[in-house]
Amino acid sequence: MDPVRNLAELLTLPDFEAASDAVLDQGCRAYVAGGAGTDRTVRANIAAFDDIWLRPRVLASTTTEPRTDVTVLGHHMSMPVLLAPTSPQRLLHEDAEIATSLAAEAAGVVPVVSTDSHVPFPEIAKASGRAGWFQLYAYRSRDDIAATIDMAETAGASALVVTVDASHAALRVHAQRAGFSTPGHVDFGTLRALGILEGEVPAGARIDRLSLSWEDLLWIRARTRLPLLVKGVLRADDARRCLDSGADGVIVSNHGGRQLDGAVPGVVALSEVAAEVDGRCAVLMDSGIRSGVHVVKALALGADAVCLGRPYLWGLSVAGREGVEAVLRLLRREIEDTLRQLGAADVNELGPHFVAKAGAGAAAGTA
Amino acid sequence: MDPVRNLAELLTLPDFEAASDAVLDQGCRAYVAGGAGTDRTVRANIAAFDDIWLRPRVLASTTTEPRTDVTVLGHHMSMPVLLAPTSPQRLLHEDAEIATSLAAEAAGVVPVVSTDSHVPFPEIAKASGRAGWFQLYAYRSRDDIAATIDMAETAGASALVVTVDASHAALRVHAQRAGFSTPGHVDFGTLRALGILEGEVPAGARIDRLSLSWEDLLWIRARTRLPLLVKGVLRADDARRCLDSGADGVIVSNHGGRQLDGAVPGVVALSEVAAEVDGRCAVLMDSGIRSGVHVVKALALGADAVCLGRPYLWGLSVAGREGVEAVLRLLRREIEDTLRQLGAADVNELGPHFVAKAGAGAAAGTA
Amino acid sequence: MDPVRNLAELLTLPDFEAASDAVLDQGCRAYVAGGAGTDRTVRANIAAFDDIWLRPRVLASTTTEPRTDVTVLGHHMSMPVLLAPTSPQRLLHEDAEIATSLAAEAAGVVPVVSTDSHVPFPEIAKASGRAGWFQLYAYRSRDDIAATIDMAETAGASALVVTVDASHAALRVHAQRAGFSTPGHVDFGTLRALGILEGEVPAGARIDRLSLSWEDLLWIRARTRLPLLVKGVLRADDARRCLDSGADGVIVSNHGGRQLDGAVPGVVALSEVAAEVDGRCAVLMDSGIRSGVHVVKALALGADAVCLGRPYLWGLSVAGREGVEAVLRLLRREIEDTLRQLGAADVNELGPHFVAKAGAGAAAGTA
Amino acid sequence: MDPVRNLAELLTLPDFEAASDAVLDQGCRAYVAGGAGTDRTVRANIAAFDDIWLRPRVLASTTTEPRTDVTVLGHHMSMPVLLAPTSPQRLLHEDAEIATSLAAEAAGVVPVVSTDSHVPFPEIAKASGRAGWFQLYAYRSRDDIAATIDMAETAGASALVVTVDASHAALRVHAQRAGFSTPGHVDFGTLRALGILEGEVPAGARIDRLSLSWEDLLWIRARTRLPLLVKGVLRADDARRCLDSGADGVIVSNHGGRQLDGAVPGVVALSEVAAEVDGRCAVLMDSGIRSGVHVVKALALGADAVCLGRPYLWGLSVAGREGVEAVLRLLRREIEDTLRQLGAADVNELGPHFVAKAGAGAAAGTA
Repeated sequence: MDPVRNLAELLTLPDFEAASDAVLDQGCRAYVAGGAGTDRTVRANIAAFDDIWLRPRVLASTTTEPRTDVTVLGHHMSMPVLLAPTSPQRLLHEDAEIATSLAAEAAGVVPVVSTDSHVPFPEIAKASGRAGWFQLYAYRSRDDIAATIDMAETAGASALVVTVDASHAALRVHAQRAGFSTPGHVDFGTLRALGILEGEVPAGARIDRLSLSWEDLLWIRARTRLPLLVKGVLRADDARRCLDSGADGVIVSNHGGRQLDGAVPGVVALSEVAAEVDGRCAVLMDSGIRSGVHVVKALALGADAVCLGRPYLWGLSVAGREGVEAVLRLLRREIEDTLRQLGAADVNELGPHFVAKAGAGAAAGTA
Repeated sequence: MDPVRNLAELLTLPDFEAASDAVLDQGCRAYVAGGAGTDRTVRANIAAFDDIWLRPRVLASTTTEPRTDVTVLGHHMSMPVLLAPTSPQRLLHEDAEIATSLAAEAAGVVPVVSTDSHVPFPEIAKASGRAGWFQLYAYRSRDDIAATIDMAETAGASALVVTVDASHAALRVHAQRAGFSTPGHVDFGTLRALGILEGEVPAGARIDRLSLSWEDLLWIRARTRLPLLVKGVLRADDARRCLDSGADGVIVSNHGGRQLDGAVPGVVALSEVAAEVDGRCAVLMDSGIRSGVHVVKALALGADAVCLGRPYLWGLSVAGREGVEAVLRLLRREIEDTLRQLGAADVNELGPHFVAKAGAGAAAGTA
Repeated sequence: MDPVRNLAELLTLPDFEAASDAVLDQGCRAYVAGGAGTDRTVRANIAAFDDIWLRPRVLASTTTEPRTDVTVLGHHMSMPVLLAPTSPQRLLHEDAEIATSLAAEAAGVVPVVSTDSHVPFPEIAKASGRAGWFQLYAYRSRDDIAATIDMAETAGASALVVTVDASHAALRVHAQRAGFSTPGHVDFGTLRALGILEGEVPAGARIDRLSLSWEDLLWIRARTRLPLLVKGVLRADDARRCLDSGADGVIVSNHGGRQLDGAVPGVVALSEVAAEVDGRCAVLMDSGIRSGVHVVKALALGADAVCLGRPYLWGLSVAGREGVEAVLRLLRREIEDTLRQLGAADVNELGPHFVAKAGAGAAAGTA
Repeated sequence: MDPVRNLAELLTLPDFEAASDAVLDQGCRAYVAGGAGTDRTVRANIAAFDDIWLRPRVLASTTTEPRTDVTVLGHHMSMPVLLAPTSPQRLLHEDAEIATSLAAEAAGVVPVVSTDSHVPFPEIAKASGRAGWFQLYAYRSRDDIAATIDMAETAGASALVVTVDASHAALRVHAQRAGFSTPGHVDFGTLRALGILEGEVPAGARIDRLSLSWEDLLWIRARTRLPLLVKGVLRADDARRCLDSGADGVIVSNHGGRQLDGAVPGVVALSEVAAEVDGRCAVLMDSGIRSGVHVVKALALGADAVCLGRPYLWGLSVAGREGVEAVLRLLRREIEDTLRQLGAADVNELGPHFVAKAGAGAAAGTA
C-alpha cells in the first residue's frame, strides 16, 4: 500500500479514523477512540455541534483566499488550531512527538506537548526548531513541578498549559474491554529526564498525579513568566476564578469525554465560558472537533482557537509526520471553505451572528 | 421498460429519485443527490419541514378545484413553483434544458435557466416560446456580466436571478467519493455563446466565478429593468439590504445544502426572512421541497412561491421532458390535494394560521 | 386455529394488528393501516401520546373497581369509548357492521355508524337493538342530506355526527402502492337504501361528496333535534364556531392521518380545542388511540370520550363480533388498570393535573 | 465457569444484566426486566438521566478518596445507596434475602426488606446482624398491618417504608409474554410467619393488598416510632401531604416502571419533589439507576440517597451474596470516580450547580 496515494483518498477527518483503525491493533484503537464510562460525552461532544446552524451572509465579496491566521497570547498561528497534548505518541507511531512537532511546524500551528510525552520535551523542541507550548501535569511535589516548569522554559516553551481535569485516573470502560495495555516500547521520556520516573514504566502506564488547588495555581502563576492557560474548564465560575488567579487563558475541555461520562459537551460549555470571560483572556476549546465547520462554529461562539486531539493522532497512526500534515492540510482546506461559503474573509471576523441554535426560529411566524 | 407506464407508478417525488437512481451512473447520481461535507444540511432541509404541522380548517366549503395560480413579479404561473437553475442538464438527459423548458411551458410554470446551461439561453428561449427567468453567475469582469445580462434581456428573460451563495466551489464529499467527473458531451453553451468559455471544458467543469459585492448588486440593479431577485439569502439583515439595494425579490436558499454543510435549513431561514421583508418584496424559497405539503407549508410561512431543484432533475433523468412534466403534474396534484384537505380554496389564502411548530402546544393545559 | 384461544393471547391492541395482518390480504391491510402521503401524521398521532407523562397520585384509597362509565350528550356508556365510523366493514369481515354493533351493545359502548356502511343503517339498528350514533356524509343535494337525516332519526339514531374533514378524496399512497381496490362483495347499503347509489359500486368505491359550509351546518342544525357533533375539528377557532353554530359537541380528529399528511396530531389539537371550548360542549377525540393509557391521557387533557378506529377493525378482521368484543374488553381492562395505578377512582375525576408534558420539568432545580 | 473470575470481567452494571440473562430462565429474566405495558417508563427512567449534564469544577484539590458516606434518618451508610425492596428473591437465587442482607451489611449499605420476602424478616435480621429497613405492604386488615409493624420493630428494623404505588396488580405485558409464573420453591416467608398467608402460594403469587388512604398513613404514623418513609411519590402535592402527615421521608419512585406505563420518569419527578420538600424531610429516589453517574446526578438534583433495584438482583442471580457485593463494589467505585472527576470531595457537597439540563445553554451567545 502506497501511503501517499492513500492519504489523498481521505476526504474527511473521520476517513482518517477509519484508516487509523486499519493500522492499529484493537487495544490502541480502543485507547484512542474510547472515553469514560458509556462514551456518552464522547458522542455528545461531536453531536452538540449539529445543534448549531451556520448563518452565511451574502455579497460580502470574499476572496478565494480567506485569512485563517490568528495570534493567541503572542503566538502567531497559520490557523486557529493547536495540537492538543496527548499521552506518549509512541503508542501510535515510532516517530512519536517528533513527527507531530515537525508536522505542526510545517503547518504553522502550535503543538502542545504533554508532560507525559514519550520523547523528552527538550529533544522535541530541538528537533522541530520551535518548542511549542508545554502542558503541565503535576507529579510528586512542588519541587518537581518547579523543575518541570524550569525544563519547559529552558527548552523554549512559549506557553504553559496546566491541565486540571485529569488528576485522577478515569474509568475507561471502552479501553478496558479491549484489553488495552501500554506496549513495552512506550516510555515517558520527559518524566524520566526530570527524574520523576525511574525504573520500569508502571503497570497501566499510570503514574499518580497531584490534584492541584487554586493555591497551587497561584503558586505556578508566580513561578513563571510564560503565558499561563488552564485546561479543562467547563464552568463560568471556574473561568472567572482562573482569570482572577492570573491565567492568560482557559481551555474549555472535557478531555475529549475521557474523564467523566456525562460531562457537559465542550461546545455547550464554550458559550457559557466565553460569555463570562468576555475577552478578558484567551478562550480555547477542544473536545469534539471533527471538521473545519466545527472549528468555525467554535470561533463564532467565542473561542480564539481550538485544540485538535484524536484527528491528528489518526494521521500520526496512518503515516507519521506525513499523516499529521495531511490532517492539518485537510482541516485548513475545510476552514477556508467554510469561511468562503459563510461570507467571512478572515477567521477574526467570526462572531455570534454567524450561528443560531437548531430548533429555535423555525416557524417563528406561526399562530 | 415502457417509460410511460413506469411514470404512472411513481406516486411521490422520492419515487422519481429511485427511478432516477436506476438510470444514472453512480457519479451523476452522487452529483445530483450529494451536498457539501456530511450532507447534514441536505438532510435537514427536508427534515425541517417535519417540524411544522398543518392546521386544517373545516366547513370552508372548498371546491374540488382549488386555485393554485399565482403572479410573482408580474409573471403569472399556474402554480407557485419555479424550476430552480441547475448545472448543465445534459448530465442527466440528452435534451437538457430544452426538455425542461418545454415541460415548464406546458405546465405553466417558470424555468429559471442557469448561466451554466448546456444549451445556450437564446436557443432555450426560442425552443420553448417563452424564455423564463435567467439566473446570473458572474464571470471574469463587469463587461462580461453586462454582456450576459444583455443576452438574457435580448432573449426575452422576464426576470434576473442573481445567485450569491455559490461564488466559491464547495467541498462536495459525496460526489468526490463517487468519483464524479463531468462527461465529455456536456458543455456550457451559454458561456460559450458569450465568449466567456473558449476551448475545452475545464477539468472538473468548474470555471471560476467572481465573488459579488453589495456594490456589484447596485451596479446590476442599475444595469437592467428586469425584475431582480437575489438567490441564496438566509438572514434577515441580508434580506433587508437586498431590499434597500433595489431587489424585487429574494430567494431563501442554501443551494440545496450543496455549498455549506451546517447552513441553516431553508424553511427555518424562511420565517426569519419573511418576517423581515413583510411583503415589501417577493420572497421565494428552495432547498428541501419534496412534496406538495412542503410547498403549502412554505407558502403558509411567507413564501410567494418555491423553486424546485432535484425533483425535476429526477424526472428529467428518467424520461426527459415527459419526466419533468410527470413531476410537475404530481406536485400540482399534491398541492391541490393539500389545499382541499386544508380548507383553502386558493394558494393566495395561505398564511401563518395554517401552520404550527411541532412540539409547541401539546399538553398545553397541564399542571 | 382456534380463534378463541388465539384472542386470549393478544395482550395489547397492537397484538390485534399483527393478528389482523395475518388474516387480511395485502390490499386490505394497507387500506386499514395506511394514511395520506408519507404516513407522517399516522405515526405522529400515536407518538404524540408519548410526549405526555402521567402523574399518579398516591394514598387515594382507590378501589379495585374504578368507575369507567360516562354520560356524553345524554348517552350513557360503560366506558368513555365510542367506535368511530369507518368505511364498509364488509372489507374486513362478512358480518360487517352487524358484528360491530352487536359487540358495541354487548360492551355498553356506542357505535358511530357511517353513511358509507355496507349494511343499511336501519338493519344495523334493528339487529343490535339500539341504533347508536349516525355519522353523516353529505351526498348530492340538501334533499339527499335531509333524507339521510330522516332515515337516521327514524331508525333511532341518538346523535348525529357530521364529518367535515373528508369531503375530498385523499392521496393514500400506502394503499395505492399495495394496489388496494374495493372487492366486489362490498356495497354501500345505506346509500343504496337512500337511493343515492344506484347500479354498480363505482370504481375506487368513491362516490363524490359535497363539501359542506358553515351555512350547511346551520341548516343541518335546524333540521334535527338530535344532538349534533362535528367531527374533524383541529383548531380552537373552528371549535368555537361549531359552538356558535349550535353544535353539541366536537370530535377532534385528523381522520386517523388518512386525509392530510402533516396535519397536527390529534392529541396536540385536543389541548387547544378543549381549552377553547372550556366545557361549553362535548369534546371527543380520535386519531392515535392504541391503549387504555392513551384514553386516560386524552381524558386528562380535556376529552369527554374517545373514538376508537383501527383497533376495533383489527378485532373485526380477526374474529368478527367476538374480535371486537375482545378489543373492547382489553381496552376496558387497560383503562381500569390505568385509573387504579393513577389513583383515580372514576374516569370523571381525570383532569390536567394528572399529566405533564415530557421534556418539561427535568432538572428544574439546576443552576 | 469460575464465577469469581467472571465477576471481575463485569465492568458496568448493564454487564451484570447480561450475565444474569445467561443464568436465568426466560420467565424470570422477563419478570426482572419487564415493566408495565410497553415498557415505556422502564426505558424513560434510564434515558432521562441522559438529559442531565454534569458540570465538573476544577482545582478543587480533591483527594483520591472522596467521602461517600451519608447519614439518612439517623442511619449511617457507607454510600448513599440502599437496596430497594423486591419480591421473593428466591426467584433468583437459593440464598434469597439472606445473601442480599449479608452483602448489604458487608458493604455498609442498608437493605430495605419487603413484606413479600421469601425468608421471614426476623430470620433475615438475625442472619445479617442488622435488620435494615422494613418495607410495608398492607394486607387484609389494620390488625394485620399492626402485627406486621410490630414484627418489624421487634426484629430490629430501623425504619419503616410504606409502599403506596403498588396496591393493585399491574399489567406486566413483558412478563406475560414470557409466560412467567412463580416457581413452586418460592414462598412468602414473612407473610407466612405473620399468618397472613396460609396454605399454598396463590396462583400468580399475588395476594391482594389493601389500598391505603391518607388516613391509614396517619394511623401508621401514630402506630410506630420508627422513622417513616412513603415510597412511590411522584408529585409535589403528594410529597407535601406526606410531610404534613408526619412522614420522615419520601421515596420518589415509579416502581421501576413496573406499575404504570407512561408514568413520569423518576429523575424528572425528583426535581419537582425535592423543590417542594426543600430539606424538611429526607428525599430518596429509585427507578433508573444504572451507574455511579446516575447516583451523583440524583444527589445533585436533591436526593439524599438512592435505592438500587434491578442491578443488585442481577448480581444476586449471577453469584448470590458475592454477586451483590460485586455490584455494590462497582457502584461505589463509580460514585467515587464521579466525585473525583467532578471536583467534589464528599457526596454531601453535591448540589444543583453540578448539573445542567441538556439542551439548555448551547449556543447561548447567538444572535
